[in-house]
Amino acid sequence: MSAPTGDIGLIGLAVMGQNLILNMNDKGFTVVAYNRTTSKVDDFLANEAKGTKVQGAHSIQELVSKLKRPRKIILLVKAGPAVDSFISQLEPYLEKGDIIIDGGNSHYPDSIRRTKELEAKGLLFVGSGVSGGEEGARYGPSLMPGGSNAAWPAIKEIFQATAAQVNGEPCCDWVGETGAGHYVKMVHNGIEYGDMQLIAEAYDILKRGLGLQESEIADIFLKWNKGVLDSFLIDITANILKFNDDDGVPMVTKILDQAGQKGTGKWTAIAALDAGTAVTLIGEAVFARCLSAIKEERTRASKVIAGPQKEPFRGDKQQFIDDLEQALYASKIISYTQGFMLMRETAKELSWNLNYAGIARMWRGGCIIKSVFLGDITSAYEKSKNLESLLFDDFFNKAVHKAQPGWRRVIAQAVLWGIPTPAFSTALAFFDGYRSEVVPANLLQAQRDYFGAHTFKVLPGKENAKLVAGQDIHINWTGRGGNVSASTYSA
Amino acid sequence: MSAPTGDIGLIGLAVMGQNLILNMNDKGFTVVAYNRTTSKVDDFLANEAKGTKVQGAHSIQELVSKLKRPRKIILLVKAGPAVDSFISQLEPYLEKGDIIIDGGNSHYPDSIRRTKELEAKGLLFVGSGVSGGEEGARYGPSLMPGGSNAAWPAIKEIFQATAAQVNGEPCCDWVGETGAGHYVKMVHNGIEYGDMQLIAEAYDILKRGLGLQESEIADIFLKWNKGVLDSFLIDITANILKFNDDDGVPMVTKILDQAGQKGTGKWTAIAALDAGTAVTLIGEAVFARCLSAIKEERTRASKVIAGPQKEPFRGDKQQFIDDLEQALYASKIISYTQGFMLMRETAKELSWNLNYAGIARMWRGGCIIKSVFLGDITSAYEKSKNLESLLFDDFFNKAVHKAQPGWRRVIAQAVLWGIPTPAFSTALAFFDGYRSEVVPANLLQAQRDYFGAHTFKVLPGKENAKLVAGQDIHINWTGRGGNVSASTYSA
Repeated sequence: MSAPTGDIGLIGLAVMGQNLILNMNDKGFTVVAYNRTTSKVDDFLANEAKGTKVQGAHSIQELVSKLKRPRKIILLVKAGPAVDSFISQLEPYLEKGDIIIDGGNSHYPDSIRRTKELEAKGLLFVGSGVSGGEEGARYGPSLMPGGSNAAWPAIKEIFQATAAQVNGEPCCDWVGETGAGHYVKMVHNGIEYGDMQLIAEAYDILKRGLGLQESEIADIFLKWNKGVLDSFLIDITANILKFNDDDGVPMVTKILDQAGQKGTGKWTAIAALDAGTAVTLIGEAVFARCLSAIKEERTRASKVIAGPQKEPFRGDKQQFIDDLEQALYASKIISYTQGFMLMRETAKELSWNLNYAGIARMWRGGCIIKSVFLGDITSAYEKSKNLESLLFDDFFNKAVHKAQPGWRRVIAQAVLWGIPTPAFSTALAFFDGYRSEVVPANLLQAQRDYFGAHTFKVLPGKENAKLVAGQDIHINWTGRGGNVSASTYSA
Repeated sequence: MSAPTGDIGLIGLAVMGQNLILNMNDKGFTVVAYNRTTSKVDDFLANEAKGTKVQGAHSIQELVSKLKRPRKIILLVKAGPAVDSFISQLEPYLEKGDIIIDGGNSHYPDSIRRTKELEAKGLLFVGSGVSGGEEGARYGPSLMPGGSNAAWPAIKEIFQATAAQVNGEPCCDWVGETGAGHYVKMVHNGIEYGDMQLIAEAYDILKRGLGLQESEIADIFLKWNKGVLDSFLIDITANILKFNDDDGVPMVTKILDQAGQKGTGKWTAIAALDAGTAVTLIGEAVFARCLSAIKEERTRASKVIAGPQKEPFRGDKQQFIDDLEQALYASKIISYTQGFMLMRETAKELSWNLNYAGIARMWRGGCIIKSVFLGDITSAYEKSKNLESLLFDDFFNKAVHKAQPGWRRVIAQAVLWGIPTPAFSTALAFFDGYRSEVVPANLLQAQRDYFGAHTFKVLPGKENAKLVAGQDIHINWTGRGGNVSASTYSA
């Protein structure tokens, strides 16, 4: 048997796996392909991979035997038990220092666990976010690897060569330890949910509010794609809106308005709740998909609940469209602000050293949320490594100030029209709360102390003999009840 | 040793436990009190329980020995390991048919587990929601027991006598199997988060928007408390706003605006995400508390981010206050609509038979969210047991239609003022989405199919040779890429 020549192995020949293989092959690497249903291997070699250096394997053992050391094997299989199953199947054939890479959408706690389990056996584990869909995988994805630090030098060349390049820089860097790669990918996907929802709301306002046709709306998106909103999602939205069925009717109007939602967007919202971070925009984006899912209930409701009387729009249409661009831009700034707040909070909790500029750089190209905007975020974090939030950065601070009047006008108008804007609205509510030194949570604390003796703290500057700084204060608001504070009941 | 005379035992003498004991004693039951730090037992007997029939116990064994069979022991201890620990300590002294009742704020999956574990040992378990804070516990709480069905006849008399009574009906009924009691209590607490946030937003609008003083705002709440908003929380809000410190300054203005949030509100939001149900108002209420928590960051942000120029209010103040009452009412209807949707979804998933009219009846009195409103919900579900949602009920349908114009005016005004209304706004966005036969999720599905080959379904009525009803359809939007659909990648 000749010496192995495979640079890297890949398990799982669905669209993402196939395209990633072809991409790595283009970059000069020899990839060994394996799939559980091995006829897929033969099909792939005979068709898409015909004329390439790609090698096939019909068993796990054969796959491993064809790889140079340290072996690097990427799994692109369904997240969950399938990943653990392939890891178990690989283990007997691997040696110290070999690297298993999970490129699926695994939940980060699983990646934390797998890193520990494999390191205990002398193997290395990498959990890597792979974003960009089938196009990205084929022509350059965003890759977000994290896990065993020792694995990075061995995979760096392949990963950075395979990733998308923006201005000569790869959209791939080492994210951090254990589950950091999949964590950052999860937040990326959550942000993607948010971006998509914001675009959907803008589309809805232009269609139901201004009464524009899909082709007109496409032109607006094309124009926006030359400005601050320049991004993959705005670009494909224009393409989608211009795509007509054979009868000349826009295809999008023939698509059922029910969006799938059980994925990483939900995980991000749950992670935010667990971390106690107000990532409201992603939360609303996930819930908007939930609401879309109950199509039949909505249809029945639409028959018995009337909205406001629709008045024709009497203002300046172009001004309103420009306002909408600003509303979308400002809401997007808030969403990314929230996403980075969440990563900051989690890094603190799990003692990860996340490189925020690097994360923005990884997202700048190759992935679904790629945009010019992410270059600006990269700059913000390059200028100030410990930036408290994007809203403290000069560039974004100026941008939201500029966007603010139009942002408010759009939401007020949508509210009066009866067009739902959950993501625009929550972004503005966060913005107005974030810039409020005092929010009405003092009343909440008074209520909690009133009904549950939960205690409160005094507002700095208002201390007196009864209201002592730093102390948990309970007031007998009613003149009744005991003199104890709640220790078991928490509302 | 004489025959035991205790009707029920209670472990945990913090404020809730003490008050519940005194309440049960008032109703004629003999309660045996125990606490891990036994000096608390002596203190309690010598002070609050002086002159009552309450008996003390200084060990678990003594506690059990003083109870009639089947023994009923309520735990009112910190949710989590302490509950399991006391269950383990009790088990050796208990016999078949004895009942352990957890009256703490346990998470419902724990109650599901504990029901199964104890039933396997021949014991019975009840996980009971107990709401009403210290006042409720003392004078009549809302009790929401679920768990081992066989336990209900044995505890029914004590529970229904101890609970609050509204129009001669107890605010206590059997909720359902395994974790149903704690599940319903969790949703109750989530709704409580929502109600409190709505009140806080109304307060903020009246104070920062209209520029009213606390005493004036108190009068508004007092008036509201005579109308559709008549409820415990509105009532105590008026009392709080009227409560001045010794220097005559409203106490609420001296309270730090940082609200605690790590509790059942968060669980409700997570349960909603897991169930795929758009419970947006509770979600926003939890996130509003998260945002309140970062007081120092908000303070720094307030120095560098300016809001809109504040214009004095030129409209009819009383009309605006009436609009605000309608906005609060309509938002509250949406929040309860969402809460009942969540319970319906979970009951479906876990095969629970929840009695929705009974749940509303249990919440009508004794608890933090008690209100006249819950009587209307009870009526709605009594009229139609399988009511799809509150918005389909005549009474609530009329109510939201009536509230709609004012609701929209208030939010539009708050948006222009720069006063955050995350809960009002998300309620309206849900309302407008719910009554929309078509939402822009068709665009989301097109995007997902474009970048990830996720497929979509055709909108009914738009079928043709390529767009076949019920099928997963993929379109090659770009003319590039393979002919496969995504099976491993999900965004």
